[in-house]
Amino acid sequence: MTMMMHVPGAEALDRSSSLSTLEVFALTQRFDRPTLVIDPAIVARNYAELKAGLGRADIHYAVKANPAREIVAALIALGSHFDAASRGEIELCLSLGARPSTISFGNTVKKAGDIAFAHAAGVRLFAVDAPEELAKIAEHAPGAQVYVRLLVTESQADWPLSRKFGCDRPTALALMAEARALGLDPVGISFHVGSQTRRSGMWAAALDEMAGVWTAARAAGHELSLVNIGGGFPAFYGEAIEAAEDYAASVVGMVEARFPGATRIMAEPGRGLVGNAGVIACEVVLVSRKSATDLNRWVYLDIGKFSGLAETIDEAIRYQFVTPRDGDPVGPCILAGPSCDSADVLYEKRPMMLPATLKAGDKVLIRNAGAYTSSYSSVGFNGFPPLAVVAI
Amino acid sequence: MTMMMHVPGAEALDRSSSLSTLEVFALTQRFDRPTLVIDPAIVARNYAELKAGLGRADIHYAVKANPAREIVAALIALGSHFDAASRGEIELCLSLGARPSTISFGNTVKKAGDIAFAHAAGVRLFAVDAPEELAKIAEHAPGAQVYVRLLVTESQADWPLSRKFGCDRPTALALMAEARALGLDPVGISFHVGSQTRRSGMWAAALDEMAGVWTAARAAGHELSLVNIGGGFPAFYGEAIEAAEDYAASVVGMVEARFPGATRIMAEPGRGLVGNAGVIACEVVLVSRKSATDLNRWVYLDIGKFSGLAETIDEAIRYQFVTPRDGDPVGPCILAGPSCDSADVLYEKRPMMLPATLKAGDKVLIRNAGAYTSSYSSVGFNGFPPLAVVAI
Repeated sequence: MTMMMHVPGAEALDRSSSLSTLEVFALTQRFDRPTLVIDPAIVARNYAELKAGLGRADIHYAVKANPAREIVAALIALGSHFDAASRGEIELCLSLGARPSTISFGNTVKKAGDIAFAHAAGVRLFAVDAPEELAKIAEHAPGAQVYVRLLVTESQADWPLSRKFGCDRPTALALMAEARALGLDPVGISFHVGSQTRRSGMWAAALDEMAGVWTAARAAGHELSLVNIGGGFPAFYGEAIEAAEDYAASVVGMVEARFPGATRIMAEPGRGLVGNAGVIACEVVLVSRKSATDLNRWVYLDIGKFSGLAETIDEAIRYQFVTPRDGDPVGPCILAGPSCDSADVLYEKRPMMLPATLKAGDKVLIRNAGAYTSSYSSVGFNGFPPLAVVAI
Repeated sequence: MTMMMHVPGAEALDRSSSLSTLEVFALTQRFDRPTLVIDPAIVARNYAELKAGLGRADIHYAVKANPAREIVAALIALGSHFDAASRGEIELCLSLGARPSTISFGNTVKKAGDIAFAHAAGVRLFAVDAPEELAKIAEHAPGAQVYVRLLVTESQADWPLSRKFGCDRPTALALMAEARALGLDPVGISFHVGSQTRRSGMWAAALDEMAGVWTAARAAGHELSLVNIGGGFPAFYGEAIEAAEDYAASVVGMVEARFPGATRIMAEPGRGLVGNAGVIACEVVLVSRKSATDLNRWVYLDIGKFSGLAETIDEAIRYQFVTPRDGDPVGPCILAGPSCDSADVLYEKRPMMLPATLKAGDKVLIRNAGAYTSSYSSVGFNGFPPLAVVAI
């Protein structure tokens, strides 16, 4: 979608890049604080494209990526299933009409009371990666289906996961046996190749690794039927990614070939469904140099690491910026947030190239910011309000 | 304050450490989610101790450290002044009865509209470190007093500051001249030795560096009268620190000796006033191992990096934990938060020694957690509610 209409103040932007309808809206509206503008229609389009590629696999939207009610409601209407990280996310989905049978409680770290809540609400599918968790599920959700989360060592993602979730193969097989002994139904496995895995080919090594566990478990007598391939579907941040449908079809093809007997395939896209469905409108507060001889300017925005841009930690996600002065000569900038916290610096190791003419008061758009922004925002760090969210 | 009373469930804790009245309260109350319990009486005691040491210096409480209304109200009653990072913090102080003349707008990065708001509200003292900021202040707070924030290169703090704030000496002198030309009143300088500077002696090198700027500015004809020594006053996290009064007296003595003509000294303690005035009550959600041969257990709490423990980023602040199993044999743990975010790991590079018997459901206290916790908490990351705050 490129901008064809004439928008006051948008000419400069249009010189260097075409803007989507969403971006034009965000640019031309006035906001009194940093605001994430989301477009559920883009989420719907992403869903249709992914679904076309995923075929028989169920899409469980990872609600944590963006829990905006408008997005969850749109996905329910499209028939999406959900991956919930907490009781709060389950309540959100149910409050908007999602059927409990479409919700997977995908966090391997759950309070006993929250497991009981989910079970009472009709949720029947739980993730597990440790004996103590299995015992909690057996006690508070008797008879539930469980899938075992596995560690992936072969990740090639931009935002690779730590060893925080998942267990190794021997532990997984022991958990399946123990689940059966506890009266639970161990239906399959799950894994996550890492967030923002840019090319479908990058999945092959991880899928080979997981297929080895699948085969071993079935050889040990566990009648597995479910493969949960997690997320990892990329959003566009400037580096080339494959078309969503092709990407998904390629991944599912690899899964079909590696997991015999998998009658149920789950995918948990988050970023891939909502990343490009949101744009943040913010503002330059100050441009300065620390000394006359500094090579880099410092550019301070009214949004930072603690007010929505948490994924800039370690400069992991590199957002794209649109400014009213795009097209002017550029120079390197250290980009920082507005708070008095010295850690609230977005890009310093690899400075951002921005127009040399940029100045306080300039409105800036942060593109493709629909995932992992609004809900990460602090309640009131340094007295700044949380990131506002507006749906068009 | 040590615990003398008999508290059900607290015996195990008492074996290894004495608990304050605040900690006993936090331990014996039931909370339905992670909760920061604060004691304004401890803040008042800290204030009195610091004030005794600081002598004629004004204490400007750094509101960002903990903006709880009970704390700000207690400090107003004691005659404290305030260092505000934002319009929101100014509004908070004013709403509780603080006089505008006691408020310094200490963030060097301010929106024009927020400067205008502060000026209209009667705030007359502003921080500055760049020409563009000076121009905004001259336009929106004509005639205001400004102090120039300087870069400190000689920090020895635990939580050292980046180059985000401050300018070098030539830039500072140019700003003072420019301020005068714009009709502003350049009254002095400010700097920050870094948060959590454990011993007063660690200030000497930074103070020498700043005194050089002071002398140069006065030699250039700027009649400076204000030295703002910022924060840096430490809170206790387990490593030995000096008594607050001695520490403060030592620092002020060093300032008096180095800044001739400084008729007004400001200090901006945050952590030092509130760090030990809060304790977080939370809970173990899961204890697991990734494989049978793992040396480290993983311990997952119901609070993490995105729900109040942001200062564990890069493992900078190392909290102390109290568990009901203290006294049992300990072993190394990787400590993590409850969210599905793989970056939500608190201590991994340097694992935490915790009882081997720790298990899901155990209540845990995080000691000295009064500073930089509640307001950093996210609005609803992964569907988890923000850190609750209760005052006793």
